[in-house]
Amino acid sequence: MVVSPNGNKISDATVRRLSKYYRSLKYAYDRGMRTISSQELADMNTLTAAQVRKDLSFFGAFGRRGLGYYVADLQRNIARILGINKTWNVALVGAGNIGRALIDYDQFRQQGFLMKVVLDNDPDKIGKVYHGIEVRDFANVEEEVKKGKIKIAIVAVPAQFAQGVVDRLVECKVRAFLNFAPITVQVPDGVFVRNENMAIELEALSFALTNRREPRRTLGE
Amino acid sequence: MVVSPNGNKISDATVRRLSKYYRSLKYAYDRGMRTISSQELADMNTLTAAQVRKDLSFFGAFGRRGLGYYVADLQRNIARILGINKTWNVALVGAGNIGRALIDYDQFRQQGFLMKVVLDNDPDKIGKVYHGIEVRDFANVEEEVKKGKIKIAIVAVPAQFAQGVVDRLVECKVRAFLNFAPITVQVPDGVFVRNENMAIELEALSFALTNRREPRRTLGE
Repeated sequence: MVVSPNGNKISDATVRRLSKYYRSLKYAYDRGMRTISSQELADMNTLTAAQVRKDLSFFGAFGRRGLGYYVADLQRNIARILGINKTWNVALVGAGNIGRALIDYDQFRQQGFLMKVVLDNDPDKIGKVYHGIEVRDFANVEEEVKKGKIKIAIVAVPAQFAQGVVDRLVECKVRAFLNFAPITVQVPDGVFVRNENMAIELEALSFALTNRREPRRTLGE
Repeated sequence: MVVSPNGNKISDATVRRLSKYYRSLKYAYDRGMRTISSQELADMNTLTAAQVRKDLSFFGAFGRRGLGYYVADLQRNIARILGINKTWNVALVGAGNIGRALIDYDQFRQQGFLMKVVLDNDPDKIGKVYHGIEVRDFANVEEEVKKGKIKIAIVAVPAQFAQGVVDRLVECKVRAFLNFAPITVQVPDGVFVRNENMAIELEALSFALTNRREPRRTLGE
């Protein structure tokens, strides 16, 4: 269970919004804003000001009535809450199409997620260098995880191998997984998994296109 | 605004869960289940049965008291609701690392999202063939969108080009975008954008690792 410092259970949706606020604050700061209101933060994310205030209230009192939030302060606080005020060493398992694209994914590096180790079991891939990182043999996963001080693993292997890969990494004390394989992997208590399935975003679009309310037409048209 | 057939506003979170139910039903069916309860569907997604029933109730009455849902029926109904009971022609703009990985992304094809057109403005990429699709010149976007009957565009270009690309596609009557660029793009009413940022999932993991409640230790330990 994930709880805030003052004991509230925090939903996935709240965490997602914190990530968005963090980006909005960065954007605002880069454009010279030094204070920001909950309404402004809400508008940047198509939310209500009440939602913004509620999300932030789980973690403390950051704003000042009538003034709003100091942009830099709030950004720093959210970074701390999200645990991105430090760097995290990440391992990638699976150097296929998706995996190789992720090795060099700017957004990871910018947020402090450092790709330290890339593993595969394909002899054709082991030893190859992608974006400056050499692919190593998954057979040596224990040593690689230890040496690389890996805290988070990204799993980009075919569906039938995903559970086995995760099980092995859990044995190696990895406690957090971003899973790209199209299956739900099982993990013990205290281990966290997020599933990345980009088709789900496209489904949200096909849903929107299918269910949108057509603009009202007047009789005159 | 996206509304259900019976007039309810549907939240992003509900749409996301529908996508998950769809996958669970597929999984259940493949394993021989022919009926399923809201509790079973909930358990497969770490939700409550009440949540499952509420989400589905927006769209109609699918279950039978005491019996649950027919797996195949419910799957078909959710596919229709999500608009994935048909295929959608998709264009990709930007044939860089991420873009090239997406051309061949199984999950898109399996859900009926067909990559028909790949566009770039880089002379070194135009004419190259990736996974059987030739990269064409973005300068001809209008013709390509028309010829390809494109309904959804995936934007995988550097941040500074994303808004321009989206504006041009909106002019070409594309109404739905999956944006991989790390900026918020502005679109007119009636146009839908989803932002894909894989770092946000890693942030949810760093949040979980940072804020997890440690297992209770007894005095004996």
